[in-house]
Amino acid sequence: MKMKLLYTYLNSDLTLIERELEEAIQADSQLLRQASLHLLKAGGKRIRPVFVLLGGKFGNYDIDIIKDVAVSLELIHMASLVHDDVIDDAELRRGQATIKAKWDNKIAMYTGDYIFARALELMTDIENPTAHQILSDTIVELSVGEIEQIKDKYNFDQNLRNYLLRIKRKTALLIAASCQLGAVVAGVPEQEHRKLYKFGYYVGMSFQITDDVLDFTGTEKELGKPAGGDLLQGNVTLPVLYAMQDEYIKNRIRNVHEGMPMEELNEILKLVQESGAIEKSLAISDRYLDKALKILEELPSNRAKKSLRDIAKFIGKRKY
Amino acid sequence: MKMKLLYTYLNSDLTLIERELEEAIQADSQLLRQASLHLLKAGGKRIRPVFVLLGGKFGNYDIDIIKDVAVSLELIHMASLVHDDVIDDAELRRGQATIKAKWDNKIAMYTGDYIFARALELMTDIENPTAHQILSDTIVELSVGEIEQIKDKYNFDQNLRNYLLRIKRKTALLIAASCQLGAVVAGVPEQEHRKLYKFGYYVGMSFQITDDVLDFTGTEKELGKPAGGDLLQGNVTLPVLYAMQDEYIKNRIRNVHEGMPMEELNEILKLVQESGAIEKSLAISDRYLDKALKILEELPSNRAKKSLRDIAKFIGKRKY
Repeated sequence: MKMKLLYTYLNSDLTLIERELEEAIQADSQLLRQASLHLLKAGGKRIRPVFVLLGGKFGNYDIDIIKDVAVSLELIHMASLVHDDVIDDAELRRGQATIKAKWDNKIAMYTGDYIFARALELMTDIENPTAHQILSDTIVELSVGEIEQIKDKYNFDQNLRNYLLRIKRKTALLIAASCQLGAVVAGVPEQEHRKLYKFGYYVGMSFQITDDVLDFTGTEKELGKPAGGDLLQGNVTLPVLYAMQDEYIKNRIRNVHEGMPMEELNEILKLVQESGAIEKSLAISDRYLDKALKILEELPSNRAKKSLRDIAKFIGKRKY
Repeated sequence: MKMKLLYTYLNSDLTLIERELEEAIQADSQLLRQASLHLLKAGGKRIRPVFVLLGGKFGNYDIDIIKDVAVSLELIHMASLVHDDVIDDAELRRGQATIKAKWDNKIAMYTGDYIFARALELMTDIENPTAHQILSDTIVELSVGEIEQIKDKYNFDQNLRNYLLRIKRKTALLIAASCQLGAVVAGVPEQEHRKLYKFGYYVGMSFQITDDVLDFTGTEKELGKPAGGDLLQGNVTLPVLYAMQDEYIKNRIRNVHEGMPMEELNEILKLVQESGAIEKSLAISDRYLDKALKILEELPSNRAKKSLRDIAKFIGKRKY
């Protein structure tokens, strides 16, 4: 089943957002236009816009206002992906060449800057101090997370707390902000939009852990990039941390480096898969999911709430 | 004479801003803190904060509000410098190793992102839609300028219009926004803050042209980086465009490339110096300066206006 079947009533608004995304990155510069469009056309789940819209459904939903928030958050996400690909030396994302691969690191850096600037431009139209406060706090944390991520690479001595803080900044905070900001601009009372923030935070944590597990269990076709790529790039994720509780596996993982023989990498992937680390990681993901579902119960019942519940459950079971 | 003697009455406010700059870049991440602080301590003229404060003097000057704008604009400038150094492969800035040289391109990219995020965070506190509009327009143009700059590198077939648009985005717009934003948050009427914007634009254009001339006429000690560096990095500036009106020089310049013998580069620098291109460039710089001084006359007379006039004149004559 496809996730988007869970919120078909948003289809026309999501189509509008797709169009606005394309419009937002139009640039006089041909290079910028091409690079940005390449990124946009590579697709993505647009999960942040979906959360913005659903958050808005808890209040006075006005698509003319809320669309700017939705587009802005997706652009911020896209901009951070472009810069991430530079750091990760990633060649592929969603089965497409990354901007840094198709052009180069410098173009990727500035395309990210540009997309980010466009995101801010859109948010400027929103006259809501709380919304701006939430957004700017999120952006600062996001940028701190980006650099901490570099420091954590190939650092096999980090602990669980370290990992959780990293994925919070990398993923959960922006999803949390998406759920909350949709509600804020729709005039949802503080008590409720704070709950939507927490819901997004828990779902985001669960989402990223599942993502990190998929790097070990997914196929290249499902992932749109080779399996084991995270490990190869030195990203010490939850399955890695659990697998390293075994001294033998720990020593094998410590030897991981870019350019190592594929055979050896595959051996290590198999060791991780069979170590019980996947199951342990998914159990943590489930715990976050349970928390998400629980806080959701405290919100008024409506169609959006049902969609949020369905999405959360879907994310827990997804294979790609 | 030092420029800062032209506005000694701002000293205590500028000291405050220096302290706030340092505070703004404090980060939990040691790496980020070190890289940002390295950049901050390398100094700079802090011309954008000066313009913000002087713009504010035309209205209800409240240092508590205006300082956030001043710090924010300097941070945006700093962030763009860090990313520029990546593109230019620059080793030195103001006599100090650049972040990309001292650490690497990736750290530089994320340090820029972080400093920029901090700038936005500060601006969030300003509750003035006009100010946010001006800032976001400026940021978009700035980011378009960054990528256009890459395209223009080593492109010896560009024309004057091309160059002027580039320095407008690279320098003039942010200085214009500085003059204007100080005024906007001080409640200066639109008619006047628009004039301050224009003043800043003209001064910025003149400033950048002088900067581009200094690359040919300054010493390494004065510049804080080797002379001819811009040319070597493929930046086709105004003196280059004028010098290339001579076919022989044009052909010599077309051969410029990184790693070329210093002797050959010095020969070309000398050719440019003796071609009359410096004088022609300075004449254009002067024309912008005249426009700046002229529009200034339309503003109410006060001490800030006198300082703006003195700064404009100083910039026209500066040697570093």
